[in-house]
Amino acid sequence: MTTSTTVLGLGAMGSALARAALDAGRPTVVWNRSPHRAQALGGRGAVVAGNVEEAVAGDGVIVVCLFDHQSVHSVLDPVAAGLSGRTVINLTTTTPNESRELAAWAAKRGIVYLDGAIMAVPQMIGGPGSAILYSGSVTAFEQHRPLLDRWGVSSFFGPDAGMASLYDMAMLTGMYAMFAGFLHGAAMVGAAGVAATEFAELQVPFLAAMTGQLAGFAATVDAKDYAGEGQQSLQFTETALAALLRATAEQGVAVEVLQPVHDIVQRQITAGFGDHGTARIFEELKGA
Amino acid sequence: MTTSTTVLGLGAMGSALARAALDAGRPTVVWNRSPHRAQALGGRGAVVAGNVEEAVAGDGVIVVCLFDHQSVHSVLDPVAAGLSGRTVINLTTTTPNESRELAAWAAKRGIVYLDGAIMAVPQMIGGPGSAILYSGSVTAFEQHRPLLDRWGVSSFFGPDAGMASLYDMAMLTGMYAMFAGFLHGAAMVGAAGVAATEFAELQVPFLAAMTGQLAGFAATVDAKDYAGEGQQSLQFTETALAALLRATAEQGVAVEVLQPVHDIVQRQITAGFGDHGTARIFEELKGA
Ligand SMILES: NC(=O)c1ccc[n+]([C@@H]2O[C@H](COP(=O)([O-])OP(=O)(O)OC[C@H]3O[C@@H](n4cnc5c(N)ncnc54)[C@H](OP(=O)(O)O)[C@@H]3O)[C@@H](O)[C@H]2O)c1
Ligand SMILES: NC(=O)c1ccc[n+]([C@@H]2O[C@H](COP(=O)([O-])OP(=O)(O)OC[C@H]3O[C@@H](n4cnc5c(N)ncnc54)[C@H](OP(=O)(O)O)[C@@H]3O)[C@@H](O)[C@H]2O)c1
Repeated sequence: MTTSTTVLGLGAMGSALARAALDAGRPTVVWNRSPHRAQALGGRGAVVAGNVEEAVAGDGVIVVCLFDHQSVHSVLDPVAAGLSGRTVINLTTTTPNESRELAAWAAKRGIVYLDGAIMAVPQMIGGPGSAILYSGSVTAFEQHRPLLDRWGVSSFFGPDAGMASLYDMAMLTGMYAMFAGFLHGAAMVGAAGVAATEFAELQVPFLAAMTGQLAGFAATVDAKDYAGEGQQSLQFTETALAALLRATAEQGVAVEVLQPVHDIVQRQITAGFGDHGTARIFEELKGA
Repeated sequence: MTTSTTVLGLGAMGSALARAALDAGRPTVVWNRSPHRAQALGGRGAVVAGNVEEAVAGDGVIVVCLFDHQSVHSVLDPVAAGLSGRTVINLTTTTPNESRELAAWAAKRGIVYLDGAIMAVPQMIGGPGSAILYSGSVTAFEQHRPLLDRWGVSSFFGPDAGMASLYDMAMLTGMYAMFAGFLHGAAMVGAAGVAATEFAELQVPFLAAMTGQLAGFAATVDAKDYAGEGQQSLQFTETALAALLRATAEQGVAVEVLQPVHDIVQRQITAGFGDHGTARIFEELKGA
């Protein structure tokens, strides 16, 4: 007999995770604070628990996907005493330090803790392109691989429970910066009457192609080879960014997304690095 | 007899353009302010002109690829009187209004003007992935297609000479935002001892995959359907960005690239749109 998988939290993401477990034929117990969200999963064969105690009453793995760090404590704290020896896989988005706090909290209670960070939107779970990063208990990671691999490509980042979250957040930073930059660009052409969808047809393949530049930046950063050959200089980049800011203002669009990028480049030039490569932005951002 | 192509400006980009013209077997005249940069092209069969007058003495198309708008005037103004009836293709990066100014300047002198914006780095010219946007004289665009198509995929954006540049700058905005976001993320994991190249292995395919979200944002923007189903809400995004900012600060990394994105989202929430989709960032950025 396979033991049940418990899923706590049936928002868009928790529901997708539970659905994928059910689709894999796994017995699944589900719970959500607002009970109506459990209905659809009940219809697909999930056991709908009336409260958290009931949901965690078995001996299977407990998957948590709630709003934030605090909601994880709200849901688990009241039942924690009974969870010694059990495994909790927390897929809620938390900062690295919040993940570490939860790992310490779990360790104190004899709970095996695996932290996960989902690099996908709910519709992608169980399909191609979905990836989930894990760190914390390697035992839990290995033992539950069949379940984890149902959701997406699983990778493990070591015993520091904060590491998956750190990678996640570092990657989301790039994503949100790209989203904001895209909408800024759409606003620029929009001011000249161009539809955003028309703009996207050119911008999307261009951005995808330009991700090809990033490995070069990374190699430069690792080697601290900012003075090496063949790099786009900070001086060149400043000229380009200054032109972009002028063009943005000409179109009546807010410059605030791009202004800090320009200013960082300018500060590195002022510090004497104008002929160094643009990857030097890294040095301006990184901690002291 | 094919008439010559003249290339004025032999920086990294002008040299790449001239090289591609030579590789196509076209007679090519080149000129650069600092003469040493013309040597290599001379070795490949280009005619090296001693000054601008000499370079434009023939009757072929004049391709300009200089530093900025002002350097185009510095180079062309002294010889403009003799250019009536000639075609100038300007591939220098300029703002849309600067391109329009050059088009008006050319029109006044009977010069046919085509403005171009290069969406590639010099190494890409003549190879796959290179694209150049054009606007201005459709006659010049059609007449010189064989040359233009040697450099990359050519597209035409209408008679307003500023349009190619506007598209270019709108697209570069997304690129620089993505570059800065990538380096921000690299700094975050870097603070925990992770190499940027290691980070890039995960981040690059993730960002490429996430460009797949942009068409959806664009459709929402065009339809002003921010209240429609299935969108990531501004409230959700604010929570995520606030967590990213906390995690960034935890790592000792500067928040300045991401802070404005958070603040824009927060302002839209304050304006009452928390349950609307994240594409609403567009409304905050666009002109009044
Ligand atoms: N959606 C995505 O694209 C995505 C991608 C990657 C990671 N994630 C992460 O996955 C997690 C869940 O996201 P989601 O999209 O499922 O969000 P969601 O649709 O907003 O769902 C949030 C869930 O948290 C519950 N919740 C909130 N506060 C609670 C509390 N104090 N006590 C108990 N339950 C509480 C909600 O219960 P009610 O139904 O009762 O409100 C709901 O089940 C988040 O941490 C998110 O960052 C999401
Ligand atoms: N490189 C790229 O990745 C890229 C991509 C897209 C578009 N572009 C655009 O292409 C244009 C050229 O870029 P690049 O990479 O070739 O730059 P570059 O290597 O810095 O070359 C700049 C060129 O401009 C000339 N120049 C500057 N000021 C001048 C003046 N007042 N009078 C005469 N000549 C002057 C320089 O001559 P000297 O040799 O005498 O200094 C040199 O030939 C720029 O507008 C750039 O934005 C470049």
